[in-house]
Amino acid sequence: MNNRGSLIVVSGFSGAGKGTLMKNLVERSSRYALSVSMTTREPRPGEVDGVSYFFVSQEEFDRTAQEDGFLEHASYVGHSYGTPKAWVLEQMKKGRDVILEIDAQGARQIKRIMPDAVLIFVVTPNAECLLNRLKGRGTEHRDVIARRIRQAATEAEEIAGYDYLLVNDDLEQCTDDLEDIIRASHFDPHHNTELVENLKKELHEILQRSGDFL
Amino acid sequence: MNNRGSLIVVSGFSGAGKGTLMKNLVERSSRYALSVSMTTREPRPGEVDGVSYFFVSQEEFDRTAQEDGFLEHASYVGHSYGTPKAWVLEQMKKGRDVILEIDAQGARQIKRIMPDAVLIFVVTPNAECLLNRLKGRGTEHRDVIARRIRQAATEAEEIAGYDYLLVNDDLEQCTDDLEDIIRASHFDPHHNTELVENLKKELHEILQRSGDFL
Repeated sequence: MNNRGSLIVVSGFSGAGKGTLMKNLVERSSRYALSVSMTTREPRPGEVDGVSYFFVSQEEFDRTAQEDGFLEHASYVGHSYGTPKAWVLEQMKKGRDVILEIDAQGARQIKRIMPDAVLIFVVTPNAECLLNRLKGRGTEHRDVIARRIRQAATEAEEIAGYDYLLVNDDLEQCTDDLEDIIRASHFDPHHNTELVENLKKELHEILQRSGDFL
Repeated sequence: MNNRGSLIVVSGFSGAGKGTLMKNLVERSSRYALSVSMTTREPRPGEVDGVSYFFVSQEEFDRTAQEDGFLEHASYVGHSYGTPKAWVLEQMKKGRDVILEIDAQGARQIKRIMPDAVLIFVVTPNAECLLNRLKGRGTEHRDVIARRIRQAATEAEEIAGYDYLLVNDDLEQCTDDLEDIIRASHFDPHHNTELVENLKKELHEILQRSGDFL
């Protein structure tokens, strides 16, 4: 197997606990790296440049886009968001598995240009549980909760396009499952094309000289 | 997640140690079940009916084929071989992961009718290693070894059609890797369609009654 890391794309219901799951994952090993997005929106209190996001001007964002510097990018309520390509590829080359939290549209964009990216969708065990978690946050208005449930219903239609579905019931179990999926991804043949090409070449070389020693 | 087992299809170079790998796997847990093929050829010394193969007459084989009783079947040097469908499906329903050792043609047949079957190809770390293992058996003639190397070169062209590539260098490590892949397969969305459909239904139910309590 080669030593290259995988690109792991995580989507899922708002309220399914993706953030906690990813935090738990990266705390387990330094081989996991969370991708940091670039955005043109203003930092909110407590957000740190280079950790929460890379906060940039619209000019810098547009220049990066023109230079083909994003794996994917999109606009959302007047602001631009994108995944810087160079950093992700560099981490993967170093053998780190890069985790990217992104919506279904972004996930499809990524899969088109990197077919061996692994798409994972995270859900709650059932819909009541999602509702209770959203209510339990205590900070959300009724209309925000209703919007998130509607959004979940729309997103659920996208699940069949994902490689894996994770149910976040127990955090540690779900993190174990996520690690299984990431480890398995290293055995994708398209992740190991060099090994396969070498094998083919060597087999043909043996056949060519086979008269001598077989 | 549902409790259904996966169908794991294993192909690979003759000499890559598939047999030892699968023996090691099933010894680790009773949740793994090795599929037993049906054949019309005569038992060889030491082969046990129902363990090595189900040995049947051509009539019984043909009747099973006519009744759509095989997941796949093929003829090879005058004898028929097939994978009995009912037993495999019953084991999967019981929650066992069924392992099937089969060639690339059979693997393709299986994937067509069961898209969530997991196709794994097993290779040696390199071609010289394969050659040494074939020579090391001590029982093979030079022309048999040459044929196996030619066969490996042909089969290597099929690897890109597999879901996973396993390098059998260290047996225990390779068995660990195989178990990772099998565990990950339980999170395929197509393996959990019932869960997804329930989620969608529940989300819509919540939205319908949302005026009352959100």
